[in-house]
Amino acid sequence: MQRYKGTIEYDGSGFSGYQIQPKGRTIQAEIEKVLAKMHKGRHIAVTASGRTDAGVHARGQVIHFDSGLSLPPERWVKALNGLLPQDISFLNVEAAEPDFHARFDAVGKTYKYYLYNRETRDPFKRHYYAHVSRNLDIGRMRSAARFVEGTHDFTSFCSAKTEMANKVRTISRLDIEERHEEIIFTFTGNGFLYNMVRIIVGTLLEVGAGKRAPEEMKDILAAKDRRLAGKTAPPEGLYLWEVYYGKRPC
Amino acid sequence: MQRYKGTIEYDGSGFSGYQIQPKGRTIQAEIEKVLAKMHKGRHIAVTASGRTDAGVHARGQVIHFDSGLSLPPERWVKALNGLLPQDISFLNVEAAEPDFHARFDAVGKTYKYYLYNRETRDPFKRHYYAHVSRNLDIGRMRSAARFVEGTHDFTSFCSAKTEMANKVRTISRLDIEERHEEIIFTFTGNGFLYNMVRIIVGTLLEVGAGKRAPEEMKDILAAKDRRLAGKTAPPEGLYLWEVYYGKRPC
Repeated sequence: MQRYKGTIEYDGSGFSGYQIQPKGRTIQAEIEKVLAKMHKGRHIAVTASGRTDAGVHARGQVIHFDSGLSLPPERWVKALNGLLPQDISFLNVEAAEPDFHARFDAVGKTYKYYLYNRETRDPFKRHYYAHVSRNLDIGRMRSAARFVEGTHDFTSFCSAKTEMANKVRTISRLDIEERHEEIIFTFTGNGFLYNMVRIIVGTLLEVGAGKRAPEEMKDILAAKDRRLAGKTAPPEGLYLWEVYYGKRPC
Repeated sequence: MQRYKGTIEYDGSGFSGYQIQPKGRTIQAEIEKVLAKMHKGRHIAVTASGRTDAGVHARGQVIHFDSGLSLPPERWVKALNGLLPQDISFLNVEAAEPDFHARFDAVGKTYKYYLYNRETRDPFKRHYYAHVSRNLDIGRMRSAARFVEGTHDFTSFCSAKTEMANKVRTISRLDIEERHEEIIFTFTGNGFLYNMVRIIVGTLLEVGAGKRAPEEMKDILAAKDRRLAGKTAPPEGLYLWEVYYGKRPC
């Protein structure tokens, strides 16, 4: 048996999310179906760095699985992509240490959030960007982002349903880039709670629209109360961009 | 009654084509449904500059219709877009002369054809680009394109089912642009026959892959035989980009 690490990208618009569930297409189910085909029907469990919700995309999701097949990396990629549907694609597959774990060994992630800011909608962007028609002030959003960077208890910026006890995370960078009518938020951090990126973006949008002051971010963090933050931004703008691995802290 | 000219864009991936048909979603049917809603259920016929096939997109399709409603342009756009599905959008609506005709008055069009040229597929491009995995030589395709520009009988480059008697058209420009792994063909001409852009692109791809010499384009045109040209390139790369109007020739 060999453990393999794979990097995948997927267009989340046709999926009910990453994780297998009784109803709806999922990324995990599509990959496990293809692996079973390659292993004479035997179930091969796939573990990802984390789940993504319905409609959320990935450019660099990482998974692991074990297999008795020994194929060189490029053969794995060809075989898997040949069988997978068009909206999922393996970027690479490599042999990993037997104890490599896609979730537990991840030391950080980058997420990007794409939106376009103009009055009328663009039919080509509907699955890949959030649409914001009210005018956004980038300067205000950048000022607000400064309060989010660093190590904080992010209780206010995660779904109230989050069961994780420790909600302290570090966002090492939150960049906001403007390209014509597009605005791209890049989050890099050591870990992200459920809906955390989408709630931070939703709150920044209220700052950008002039509904909140940038300094409010500080108070929202301090309150540790989800109800103080803004609305959860829609899933279609969100991309799991990269997962980082390194030495597991002892 | 006032005649209106409208410019629309649509993502063709969810449609069976522009023109109404007994089965399948069509752009024409969606627009006529919305116009009927705005006119107390009365049918308002919509005429386009031409049809587009299933999967083909538009960035600047032009239509006309007549209405007794007198709304300012921006109100038309808001009302229509508010009722239309997310994959069609009006860019503008303007009052036109009573005899303006979206099809008969068109004096030229620009089409673009988008493809990406790399070995592995990109899940995010599957509906919006053609995917070509074999390596393409842009220089060869550009040489071949020079033979297509100008005024020719395009019988070899249109569907054998085309019923139009006169197959002489002028392509004033055929540009091929390279942006990283993307290749974009821009066709501007006074008229295009059924499948003409897709058959020319399909033939250029065979030149680019080294299967044909650029000079063959000349012989294919001269033969006036569809069987000599290459395969029809897939619909997802094609965009009706702009329709030009001017004085109708007397």
